Amino acid sequence: MTEFRSIAAATGEPHGDAFAVNTPADVAVACAKAGAAFDTYRALDLETRAAFLERIADEIMALGEPLIEAYTTESGLPRGRAEGERGRTCGQLRMFADVVRKGQFLQLRIDPAMPDRAPLPRPDLRLRMIPVGPVAVFGASNFPLAFSTAGGDTASALAAGCPVVVKGHPAHPITGSLIAQAITKAVADAGLPEGVFQHLVGPSNELGGALVQDPNIMAVGFTGSRAGGLALTRLAQAREVPIPVYAEMSAINPVLVLPEAMKAKGAALGEAFVGSLCMGAGQFCTNPGLVLAIEGEGLDAFVAAASGGVSAAKPQTMLTKGIAAAYANGVAKLAANAGVEEIARGEPGSETTGGAVLFKTTAEKFLADKAMGEEVFGSSSVIVVCKDAGELKTLLEGIEGQLTATIHMEDADEAIAAAVLPTLERKVGRILVNGWPTGVEVCHAMVHGGPFPATTDARTTSVGSLAIDRYLRPVSYQNLSQSLLPPELRDAAFGDGAPRLIDGKLTTN
Amino acid sequence: MTEFRSIAAATGEPHGDAFAVNTPADVAVACAKAGAAFDTYRALDLETRAAFLERIADEIMALGEPLIEAYTTESGLPRGRAEGERGRTCGQLRMFADVVRKGQFLQLRIDPAMPDRAPLPRPDLRLRMIPVGPVAVFGASNFPLAFSTAGGDTASALAAGCPVVVKGHPAHPITGSLIAQAITKAVADAGLPEGVFQHLVGPSNELGGALVQDPNIMAVGFTGSRAGGLALTRLAQAREVPIPVYAEMSAINPVLVLPEAMKAKGAALGEAFVGSLCMGAGQFCTNPGLVLAIEGEGLDAFVAAASGGVSAAKPQTMLTKGIAAAYANGVAKLAANAGVEEIARGEPGSETTGGAVLFKTTAEKFLADKAMGEEVFGSSSVIVVCKDAGELKTLLEGIEGQLTATIHMEDADEAIAAAVLPTLERKVGRILVNGWPTGVEVCHAMVHGGPFPATTDARTTSVGSLAIDRYLRPVSYQNLSQSLLPPELRDAAFGDGAPRLIDGKLTTN
Repeated sequence: MTEFRSIAAATGEPHGDAFAVNTPADVAVACAKAGAAFDTYRALDLETRAAFLERIADEIMALGEPLIEAYTTESGLPRGRAEGERGRTCGQLRMFADVVRKGQFLQLRIDPAMPDRAPLPRPDLRLRMIPVGPVAVFGASNFPLAFSTAGGDTASALAAGCPVVVKGHPAHPITGSLIAQAITKAVADAGLPEGVFQHLVGPSNELGGALVQDPNIMAVGFTGSRAGGLALTRLAQAREVPIPVYAEMSAINPVLVLPEAMKAKGAALGEAFVGSLCMGAGQFCTNPGLVLAIEGEGLDAFVAAASGGVSAAKPQTMLTKGIAAAYANGVAKLAANAGVEEIARGEPGSETTGGAVLFKTTAEKFLADKAMGEEVFGSSSVIVVCKDAGELKTLLEGIEGQLTATIHMEDADEAIAAAVLPTLERKVGRILVNGWPTGVEVCHAMVHGGPFPATTDARTTSVGSLAIDRYLRPVSYQNLSQSLLPPELRDAAFGDGAPRLIDGKLTTN
Repeated sequence: MTEFRSIAAATGEPHGDAFAVNTPADVAVACAKAGAAFDTYRALDLETRAAFLERIADEIMALGEPLIEAYTTESGLPRGRAEGERGRTCGQLRMFADVVRKGQFLQLRIDPAMPDRAPLPRPDLRLRMIPVGPVAVFGASNFPLAFSTAGGDTASALAAGCPVVVKGHPAHPITGSLIAQAITKAVADAGLPEGVFQHLVGPSNELGGALVQDPNIMAVGFTGSRAGGLALTRLAQAREVPIPVYAEMSAINPVLVLPEAMKAKGAALGEAFVGSLCMGAGQFCTNPGLVLAIEGEGLDAFVAAASGGVSAAKPQTMLTKGIAAAYANGVAKLAANAGVEEIARGEPGSETTGGAVLFKTTAEKFLADKAMGEEVFGSSSVIVVCKDAGELKTLLEGIEGQLTATIHMEDADEAIAAAVLPTLERKVGRILVNGWPTGVEVCHAMVHGGPFPATTDARTTSVGSLAIDRYLRPVSYQNLSQSLLPPELRDAAFGDGAPRLIDGKLTTN
């Protein structure tokens, strides 16, 4: 195949002009350019790098209506979502510009020389974080802007000082190409080498494989399926020089409804749960695919309200026919599982849409069958009923790593909440109380990550300012002259804004 | 085999009592205990955790003379080194106690709620680092104290809040067991569960394999051979839940002698180089196995002085017969390499000792033959002569990842130094000027790490206070009540010493 076309999500039909499929040879050229641009790009002063990120945001806004049209046609998601996600994407770039300017990510450390120390003098040692090198970014299907071409991984890698080569998601090539044009214009206007940002397109896995295996690439950011993330990780580990892969893969995001909360507002929670479940056709990494309840007052009302909501749900356009088919398949597997009871089903989906479905089972059955804990990407969820708080904790100890865990509780539930908290900390990246996991705030204290298989690397996040750390590594400088030291580690830099750990003491000026 | 005995390095003969070999069943029991102790240990307040680290240091000092005797007998290293390394080991524990008390490693972040924000309110989000879980530590042969049972990995993992299971190095089982007794006493005296620290011994690889594969183990710290590190990494990646392996493996630590330095002090540098090369029988990860020089004035004097020093060197006891044999084998391979010229050889080694050897080649030949760049663990080094600064940079671009790079220079060499610095930053963890790489200061700004194959993870260090980060992962808390929040994230904690990033602004109190 040498060309491919964008598919409109709602119709499943091709639209727009054909795209030339990039080849492995194109990958090699792009990665060599990225490698060649690395030292130049990372040497930019922080203000220039920050302004470049803001320029990208400006160029994305300047794309105007054609971007919104491409987004809604390709994803089947509504205009409001498109505009919101564009705002989030640009806000993210501006947040990283701020992070770059503040310089905290450099983690500057200085241990001054102690020439008179006995038995041996201490040399002058200084440390900073440097970018790891060119980064390969794989866009996600479900956030054509915020987790794709100019999404969180691209923003954080560019902020860290890494050139980026994006493998554009084939489900939204027009959206991706418009964004790539915006970034490319920002690169050119800032007078940077074109290797700082490059965009490759094509529907095959071959392209992504070649990208991860290219020796210039030093890290990978990926959001997508478990199979895809694991395949890229295997390729990255088999390289002559293995590299880290940050793959955000799958999660079912347990929602715990504790007894007093269930008693006080079972019906209202059941209704609100369906709202979170069905938002965006359930196509969120943080979709609540698992509800954990304890037998008792209010549970019937919760189940009735949730069942009612799901039964009344209209099918929604899914991102691609492939995703709709995978969703239908996942639902069919759960429905055929003898240990699971189907308690509600909305109007059925089609080749391009998905309908909501709700299942119910017991903790005992859930723990005995791993298949019930597998992610079904879409608006399907399983309510698991536990006999008591002890069984709830046992169940939580048995689940896989997750992006989030949610606790619905009243003050009187605090003892149970406190008892499960240590388990939740070991299992998830974000714990939230009396909310729904589908909102992921872009801020400094966000963790969008979690233990395997939620991600391949629980030490990091793909959303929020902490994400810059994943593309950095420390370098120590011993006894370098002031002129050879990186500018931010020179004595003369002590007056500026970046915090420093001097002899173990944090100084912020 | 159910028992094994310690071998005296100098004689190659067994001494002391027999040790019972631990079995894979022992590994499972130990790891289950470590898993069970994790939530208790990590919940300790920072002061208690810090005091526990200091108590370990006190108990190690209280071991007194038997520890020094065991160390020198088992390693063949002299008493001064034993005492120095004991001081370093205890100093390291005390440094981490200080790091724990200061709380910076928690990376506290708070984004306060914005209930009135439009279009959506912002929830209250707070973030801290938590320990990853029980850590398996593999002690190194060449630092029976500082990189072994109570070495850097154990100290940083315990500081992070992780229980530790050590696979003691079979080359120093008496030393290791004494240290384990000291730590176990500190655990008991502090009233902690015994799962916080455990020590397993045995000469086989089976034990280590079982340890890395145990589902309770969440990270691995290793210092040793490339083959060993890669084998453990493969096991860790093949687990149902893959875990990070921090393996510090091999390096040849290039030493660049720039033209003006060579001219000004070629002979003195040649002599000093031999001192670094032969220290501790060359058994350092940071041993200078590669000298990079440019043709010109002073080079002959450097080569003559280095050759003279090596020729006069006496053989030294190596850590084990296996290491002595591997060293002899590595030297023989280099000597047989037609592209390499042997320019000096000290008095030959034996079954238990190694003699120094010095080789010479050209940059062109070195770049054409990867075998010349392989680590030979011991006092063997290769001088590579480059035609000019351009060839030096080309050579540096071609070398593998390293722990260190050293530049010997005068002020007039600054242009060349500045030209190669970006390359060195991409290749190594520590860059030093006008010193020798064999000294590794334990401080805040140290990086003892570097790109593959120096380590399996260049994002971290195994020496210095930054090492605590490798055993941490972030967790985000959304809308938790003050009483459910971890103490250090509560509003009431704002007055204490741990710095916080509040709405993106660093506050240190």
